[in-house]
Amino acid sequence: MTSSYASYQALMQKIADISNAIAVMSWDNEVYLPDDSGPLRARQIATLAALSHELFTAKSTGKLLVDLSREKLPFKKAKNISISLKDYQRDKKFTPDFVMQKSMVISQAYHAWSEAKKKNDFNIFAPRLDALIKLVKEEATILGYDEHPYNAMLELYEPGIKVAKLDTLFDDVTSRLVPFIQNMDPSWKKKPSFLSAKFDKDLQWKFGIEVLKGMGYDFKKGRQDISSHPFTISFGTDDVRVTTRIDERDFSNMTWSCIHEGGHALYEQGLDAREYGLPSGSAASLGIHESQSRLWENNLGRSRSFWQHFYPMLKKYFPAQFKGVKPEDFYKGINFISKNAIRTEADELHYHLHVAIRYELEKEIFSSPIKAKDLKQLWNEKYKAYLGVDIKNDSQGILQDVHWSHGSFGYFPTYSLGSFYAAQFHHAMAAEHKDLEDQLAKGDFSSVHQWLKKHIYRHGKTYNAEELCKKATGSTLDFQYFMNYISEKYSG
Amino acid sequence: MTSSYASYQALMQKIADISNAIAVMSWDNEVYLPDDSGPLRARQIATLAALSHELFTAKSTGKLLVDLSREKLPFKKAKNISISLKDYQRDKKFTPDFVMQKSMVISQAYHAWSEAKKKNDFNIFAPRLDALIKLVKEEATILGYDEHPYNAMLELYEPGIKVAKLDTLFDDVTSRLVPFIQNMDPSWKKKPSFLSAKFDKDLQWKFGIEVLKGMGYDFKKGRQDISSHPFTISFGTDDVRVTTRIDERDFSNMTWSCIHEGGHALYEQGLDAREYGLPSGSAASLGIHESQSRLWENNLGRSRSFWQHFYPMLKKYFPAQFKGVKPEDFYKGINFISKNAIRTEADELHYHLHVAIRYELEKEIFSSPIKAKDLKQLWNEKYKAYLGVDIKNDSQGILQDVHWSHGSFGYFPTYSLGSFYAAQFHHAMAAEHKDLEDQLAKGDFSSVHQWLKKHIYRHGKTYNAEELCKKATGSTLDFQYFMNYISEKYSG
Repeated sequence: MTSSYASYQALMQKIADISNAIAVMSWDNEVYLPDDSGPLRARQIATLAALSHELFTAKSTGKLLVDLSREKLPFKKAKNISISLKDYQRDKKFTPDFVMQKSMVISQAYHAWSEAKKKNDFNIFAPRLDALIKLVKEEATILGYDEHPYNAMLELYEPGIKVAKLDTLFDDVTSRLVPFIQNMDPSWKKKPSFLSAKFDKDLQWKFGIEVLKGMGYDFKKGRQDISSHPFTISFGTDDVRVTTRIDERDFSNMTWSCIHEGGHALYEQGLDAREYGLPSGSAASLGIHESQSRLWENNLGRSRSFWQHFYPMLKKYFPAQFKGVKPEDFYKGINFISKNAIRTEADELHYHLHVAIRYELEKEIFSSPIKAKDLKQLWNEKYKAYLGVDIKNDSQGILQDVHWSHGSFGYFPTYSLGSFYAAQFHHAMAAEHKDLEDQLAKGDFSSVHQWLKKHIYRHGKTYNAEELCKKATGSTLDFQYFMNYISEKYSG
Repeated sequence: MTSSYASYQALMQKIADISNAIAVMSWDNEVYLPDDSGPLRARQIATLAALSHELFTAKSTGKLLVDLSREKLPFKKAKNISISLKDYQRDKKFTPDFVMQKSMVISQAYHAWSEAKKKNDFNIFAPRLDALIKLVKEEATILGYDEHPYNAMLELYEPGIKVAKLDTLFDDVTSRLVPFIQNMDPSWKKKPSFLSAKFDKDLQWKFGIEVLKGMGYDFKKGRQDISSHPFTISFGTDDVRVTTRIDERDFSNMTWSCIHEGGHALYEQGLDAREYGLPSGSAASLGIHESQSRLWENNLGRSRSFWQHFYPMLKKYFPAQFKGVKPEDFYKGINFISKNAIRTEADELHYHLHVAIRYELEKEIFSSPIKAKDLKQLWNEKYKAYLGVDIKNDSQGILQDVHWSHGSFGYFPTYSLGSFYAAQFHHAMAAEHKDLEDQLAKGDFSSVHQWLKKHIYRHGKTYNAEELCKKATGSTLDFQYFMNYISEKYSG
């Protein structure tokens, strides 16, 4: 293989093909896999994970990357090489055996979590969780870190983010958000009755599809299915899939899960297809990814203007349920604030307390010999302390999130980062497109798409999260934008 | 890598994991792929096909196989080595480029066929078909052959079968089957009205699931979905999936497609899971595979005793449609004989004329420079000549089968071989289990499962089709068993 950029690109595309095969198998794993097929699928995914790892960490890859890093290449290409070289140096720390073992442990853990959640019994998942914790701590040691072992994990999901920075951010969350919630006008805390009417599942499904289409999600290059934990998965920009879940007694669960995943999916569909398999054709970071979903879900998807367009459509599906509910009542109702046990059903404010709890638990995992059973106790204690919520059962408690069963520790903080980025992006977008609100009210998202394409999508990973934020908004991440956004929203 | 049997097994399992990843992507391709995702999926499948080919045809694989072939191994292991060595010698004739190119051409052809069939326009598929024909003829040249280039293809699907043997067999089909049909009692040729009543699709789906369960298909290790062309696909014995199609005006379409695919699936689910990835854990041949589907579909699935159990169940789903239809009328009705244009909807007798036409066309493809457009004309002429059927449109004519779009030329003859094997197996099974009919009437398939496990499933590929048939029935394939079976059935 000659050390040309073209051979680098071909190699990266080959690796992307294997990763995307894993993605197809993982998607199927979560939406259509037969009950007893888990172990078989686990070994197949593990084999492909090891193959992809083997290809990427081959000595020849290292030579190719080092050679190319010494060449004078145009900016974007040079960036691809430097990012890939950094990834290479990280990944070659892992043996193929470790990669395969990790993949196996994760697949098995996912199935255990799935069964445990269904049966509402943490004991089914606990031994797998202990095995996972052992594994990710080993991973942190292999990766190496400064200051805190948890930093090794954070670097995987949000390069550049460290415990020190997150401690400050979550201090802000608790010190500024908690009093903000306490001092809010009580009218925001009254649950409107329409939220718990009965909503036919098929009709909810159809409405969700209409919302996704309205947002600009391309169903010719994607599809929606049902899964227990909604997610977005990309097999390449031409096939980006979303999933949702439907609760007959809660139309908001399905609705904002669709909008949230739709935001993720628009990002993936909007990446540069010509850069397939390269950093320049991949999402910038998980925090930036989450900024996309949260921007759509909250800043746009819980705004008056958004529902000026979609509320009449919703009423057509459910005329009885919304009879007599005025647009302003609907708006206040969907922004209603209340404590509850489930992160994905939390309002925009309490949400970050849910994340703060997970952040603290994960830090604890990496700095102490804590066991799964103690984590459960700690989980329940923190929910009581931070949210005043009594966790009544495991499914609603420590089993609610899929992430740990996927081996993802260090992922949760990106949810809060994403929301804070979203507020900052939304502010910049509104400044650049003065008629934004009027457009949204007509269901016209062209300015949104234009802004996101220009400032986010087209760059891929060429800039890291911090650089991207600065280029797009003029400054690095500033929690104040989020405070401004909620202060304005909940001022009435 | 040391040349041990264990390292051979590990390598084969790794290759099986990649092949099964391709199978998952192909399954998704045919049941859930978004409209515009075809080219992306094509390149991903092609990359994995090339990877799997590269691994299997590596020099180290050759050395391992040659070394092991010189060792004294137990019978089954020695067989695995000799079969794999033969496969290796065949596959290494293809360059990775050819494998990748073939995979790409096939994926694109499949999507063109799919669109052409939907739009009822052969012109959409014709250029792709020409490209495929060019490719498979090149394949035959690369593989090498005796006497007839088509033999190279036949060897891929039914090792040991040659044009000379099939010419004799299809001579039998035309010379014995055509007069048999002409001389049948006309009462078999009267279409009963219940066949074209209206059958709710959801209820058909549910009935199909019940039939599959009744047959012993394990839904914990498989699932059923909808596709335009029903198929069975295995990702390993623990995940074997079937598809069906449903026509509201024809319950028989769905019903016997379920039973047919169920027969294939029981074979795959019944293979020895411990022999995953090895010849001893794989189906013997396509002809034997088809013997399993046709045995269930026809010899069992169109018998009086089978429906003694299932007819009352069917009537529960569709009481109005079968009101006043006596069991004997139902039995004669589902065995009703008529000429039509569609192979998969053909009765047990005309079926082989459909296959004979495809056999002749495929022979023609490999012995002349025939083009796609001439194939269509020839198709229509032969349907007129052999079946007296006027082909009214492309979808009902040359576009009806998916096979060519998959690059499968030489596959069709295995359908007739399968039916003839099935008659012979059925005869042996009834001789070994005297109370077979009584059991079937009670929905008890234990003797069927027992016979198939003992004589077919557990052997995998250890014996070839001819050996397997001889071991199971005492003689090699004999067309007379099929003639006896239909003579007895249609004697009344």
